[in-house]
Amino acid sequence: MIKDRLKSLRNEMANAGVDAFIVYSADPHMSEYLPEEWLERAWLSGFTGSAGFVVITQEKAALWTDSRYFVQAPIELKGSGIELMKEGEAETPDYTDWIIGNLGENAKVAVNTLATSHKNWNKLKEKFQLHQIDLIHQPLLDKVWEDRGKGSTSHIFIHPEKWAGKSVSEKLQEIREKLKENNADSHVITALDDVAWTLNLRGSDVDYNPVFLGYIYLTLSEAILFVDENKLDEAVLHHLQKYHVEIKPYSEFYSFLESINNRNILVSGAANQNIFNSLNSKNTIIDKAAPGNLMKAVKNQTELEGFRKVMIRDGVAMTKFLYWLRHEGCQQGLTEYEIGLKLKDFRAEGENFVGESFGSIIGYQGNGAIVHYSAQENSSKVVKAEGSILIDSGGQYLEGTTDITRTLALGEVSHDFLENMTLVLQGMINLTLVKFPKGTKGVHLDAFARLPLWMHAKDYGHGTGHGVGSFMNVHEPPQNIRKDMNPQELIPGMVLSNEPGFYVENEYGIRHENLVVVTEAEKSDFGKFYTWETLTICPFFVDSILPEMLTAPQKEWLNNYHEWCREKLETHLEGDVKKWFLELVQPI
Amino acid sequence: MIKDRLKSLRNEMANAGVDAFIVYSADPHMSEYLPEEWLERAWLSGFTGSAGFVVITQEKAALWTDSRYFVQAPIELKGSGIELMKEGEAETPDYTDWIIGNLGENAKVAVNTLATSHKNWNKLKEKFQLHQIDLIHQPLLDKVWEDRGKGSTSHIFIHPEKWAGKSVSEKLQEIREKLKENNADSHVITALDDVAWTLNLRGSDVDYNPVFLGYIYLTLSEAILFVDENKLDEAVLHHLQKYHVEIKPYSEFYSFLESINNRNILVSGAANQNIFNSLNSKNTIIDKAAPGNLMKAVKNQTELEGFRKVMIRDGVAMTKFLYWLRHEGCQQGLTEYEIGLKLKDFRAEGENFVGESFGSIIGYQGNGAIVHYSAQENSSKVVKAEGSILIDSGGQYLEGTTDITRTLALGEVSHDFLENMTLVLQGMINLTLVKFPKGTKGVHLDAFARLPLWMHAKDYGHGTGHGVGSFMNVHEPPQNIRKDMNPQELIPGMVLSNEPGFYVENEYGIRHENLVVVTEAEKSDFGKFYTWETLTICPFFVDSILPEMLTAPQKEWLNNYHEWCREKLETHLEGDVKKWFLELVQPI
Repeated sequence: MIKDRLKSLRNEMANAGVDAFIVYSADPHMSEYLPEEWLERAWLSGFTGSAGFVVITQEKAALWTDSRYFVQAPIELKGSGIELMKEGEAETPDYTDWIIGNLGENAKVAVNTLATSHKNWNKLKEKFQLHQIDLIHQPLLDKVWEDRGKGSTSHIFIHPEKWAGKSVSEKLQEIREKLKENNADSHVITALDDVAWTLNLRGSDVDYNPVFLGYIYLTLSEAILFVDENKLDEAVLHHLQKYHVEIKPYSEFYSFLESINNRNILVSGAANQNIFNSLNSKNTIIDKAAPGNLMKAVKNQTELEGFRKVMIRDGVAMTKFLYWLRHEGCQQGLTEYEIGLKLKDFRAEGENFVGESFGSIIGYQGNGAIVHYSAQENSSKVVKAEGSILIDSGGQYLEGTTDITRTLALGEVSHDFLENMTLVLQGMINLTLVKFPKGTKGVHLDAFARLPLWMHAKDYGHGTGHGVGSFMNVHEPPQNIRKDMNPQELIPGMVLSNEPGFYVENEYGIRHENLVVVTEAEKSDFGKFYTWETLTICPFFVDSILPEMLTAPQKEWLNNYHEWCREKLETHLEGDVKKWFLELVQPI
Repeated sequence: MIKDRLKSLRNEMANAGVDAFIVYSADPHMSEYLPEEWLERAWLSGFTGSAGFVVITQEKAALWTDSRYFVQAPIELKGSGIELMKEGEAETPDYTDWIIGNLGENAKVAVNTLATSHKNWNKLKEKFQLHQIDLIHQPLLDKVWEDRGKGSTSHIFIHPEKWAGKSVSEKLQEIREKLKENNADSHVITALDDVAWTLNLRGSDVDYNPVFLGYIYLTLSEAILFVDENKLDEAVLHHLQKYHVEIKPYSEFYSFLESINNRNILVSGAANQNIFNSLNSKNTIIDKAAPGNLMKAVKNQTELEGFRKVMIRDGVAMTKFLYWLRHEGCQQGLTEYEIGLKLKDFRAEGENFVGESFGSIIGYQGNGAIVHYSAQENSSKVVKAEGSILIDSGGQYLEGTTDITRTLALGEVSHDFLENMTLVLQGMINLTLVKFPKGTKGVHLDAFARLPLWMHAKDYGHGTGHGVGSFMNVHEPPQNIRKDMNPQELIPGMVLSNEPGFYVENEYGIRHENLVVVTEAEKSDFGKFYTWETLTICPFFVDSILPEMLTAPQKEWLNNYHEWCREKLETHLEGDVKKWFLELVQPI
């Protein structure tokens, strides 16, 4: 089937005189989770991972993806004729070099400009120009993918101020101030979470992220939302009217852009290239980050209160689930997939639960080592009362978003496992304990979470923390804690995950994850100092670590954390679960 | 006098139709330490700091410099009419914004392109273009500075292979390989340390750095050194002949560049703009870092052996000096300046000592808080047997370069001082103890040295470590350990300083500094891991810290370090110094 799709595509490429076609995993909003109709890469290649892209020439086809998918990708690509290119390995060619090497000069490369950022387009253009290779816009899949969906029709709903903490007027006002600061009189908002945040609306057009397809065109005096009007009910129409937001059809966005003249338009280079192509040269484009993006990341007090509230519900669900898993779940011959369903059931008991914040990762034994493992209904492992399991999951609640990982032994485990569990926990605690000055960036703190592993010549291949939205995307830029050089400073109110890990292929995966929020600690002669407030409320498994390895401050943190968990959760638990929970949170 | 100079310059500006003139602290080689004849900024403004630049308009004049000079600059600028702009403070305008604000549109700004980098020129050009301001080349000071020097005539000497560890042929060969990799057939080497390193030559045209004024033009088959021939003796001429290096006059470099055609020339954007202006458009410029720059930074085994050898000499000198300072020096009513001379005398007793590697910083009490303090002959403080003193100094030896800081109490000191001494030492030790994977950059490790201070809401305003040359510049790029986003990975063989500090204005300065070299620690399933080998051999003052604050691993490191100091230095000391030294290195 994949072979047929590739064949049809190659025919279209030949017709269009295109020598190579690049299919990214992207939609016009540069989303992480794509609407069905934009799963172009998955449809064409069969590879379903969240990151990776395919390049097709008449003779060859290759998929580039990262280490999270080195186990999954070969399975899904089997028989497709698509070669796997392992990103980050020394012998793996850069895809542009691969294209240049395969095509030579004077060739033609096409992409769909709706599904690639301006920034990436420019990079490609520059590189290819050096080799006399032409880069063009050609949405070739439109002709090949016949039963491509038409988009969701799910309805949009209001995210009220009592949870958003800020009115639409205030948000528009703040964004307009930033536009003025940047000498802009107009602005295009294209990231779906930015659109939803700005208008205090939510939707369900994609999995896990409570967003809807839309663009905002904003000037200093007007605001237009481009959206499928069928998704709007009376309440939402009234809400938009109240804030003077005009409505135009989603499908008219690009023709609208073409009609704009003489504007100074702020558009992020992270937005898709089609937007840049649509704006005529009478406009001046100011390529800067969308101001709302950073505003959204810095949570207000109402949003933080929301986080704190839903963490109790989430902690109760996790505690009940973990009790069930250890005592019953692992005795019943259930698969990882079935255990995931059960976990969702526990969460669904919580007030204002909307859905999972991402596909839960239930990684038993060796599957725990597959960093973004997704247990499939028909192929997932049966979980038994032996070895270990990694549970990374989260919920969307009306008041906030959760993301938590706990790893635990279900039976006998090796001493190495216990030692590595402890090293990872030490890293998580060390990062939690730091105080740091204003101006500090994630890249400055990342190594604190890694050092205990580094000292044993061990490491993990993923970042230590990502931003988290407020009833919004579980992966939220611009802040993060990674080895990468992200210039974004950490600002009080930013919520991030703290999730070091350790993985032994085919044996086990370890990850400990809490959500934390940057908070002011102290102001001294040397400026403001920040630290973390932990949000996640759920015990760790002391019987799955080697407590004697912990330093005194680490032990103190763990005991305080468990005491705090007890305070927050005890009254919500009863019977055997409560009894077990109270043992879990005993000081060591 | 400064006012007269400014007046003459303003006349020349008016004649040339120039509205603003920028004078950087730079020479045509973008050196840190400038030859006399390039001290343009110091000559014009009276400010002698190592960093800072002046902008002059008809009405105003301002100097931008960083926090190291916030005490020194106002003193030196007094009466000049030049305003101090404190870089890094919120209210300080960026100098380009200041220029734009003062001049308005259609103005003309001049710089001397010999004294600004291509990178900076481009940045200025781009910014000014937005405001219709013209940026031009005008070496206006040439007309104003009448007794400007003609340059040093000091002789050049060979740095033999027994110390360089690599022949000129090998170096030229390696650089040519890199040129080929970058599709270049030609290359211009302009940094003085790169020139000296490439040819295994040394000189003394500037203070502290054993370099000489020269450029290299290198192709895949030829090499030309542009240098003042009077500096070359028979041995050097023979040496250059042996490696087929042609010699041309230093003064002919730019006319030579103008004569080049049809070349693919690799020139670093860090090189001066005059080079780029001199190359005609028939050439293709490849703007990449000079390959020799990184090669030089990664020391070979011979060079590292050289470091290890000179560290013994330097440690002996420091120990004798510190003994003298504590027992006699602080009793004799000597000034910081005189103590600096004495320290130089102790170093000069060492074999193959060439000179100091930088102007030693002898900061008594509050002067220790002036990060780049330079005690002046007529104005420096008298040192007494009370309070504390910071000694940051280093030597150039034929086999290597040293840079060490020790801080110690000379009499009664406050508990706060002892606590801060300990926090800084803990930071230095923590950074020394880390093991880290291949690919780690300085920015990932910087915070380890800061955390003990951060936890007390304290910090220091400078970087944690800089690269150090091998009988070469004491500040050597490209590697460093800083908060800044330097993309250079740490590679085994790179020598760096590890020097956290803490400063209380008008009271005291604290800094502990050892030189360390990146070294391979271990290879595991997770790749190569590196750690540090400490090079500097000189005890710390346990009586100037609070040992009870140290963790067990920190104590262990300190005891091991002192035991190692004993092994290395004991046999080179005698009498009272030795007795005292053996007490210093006692385990705690």
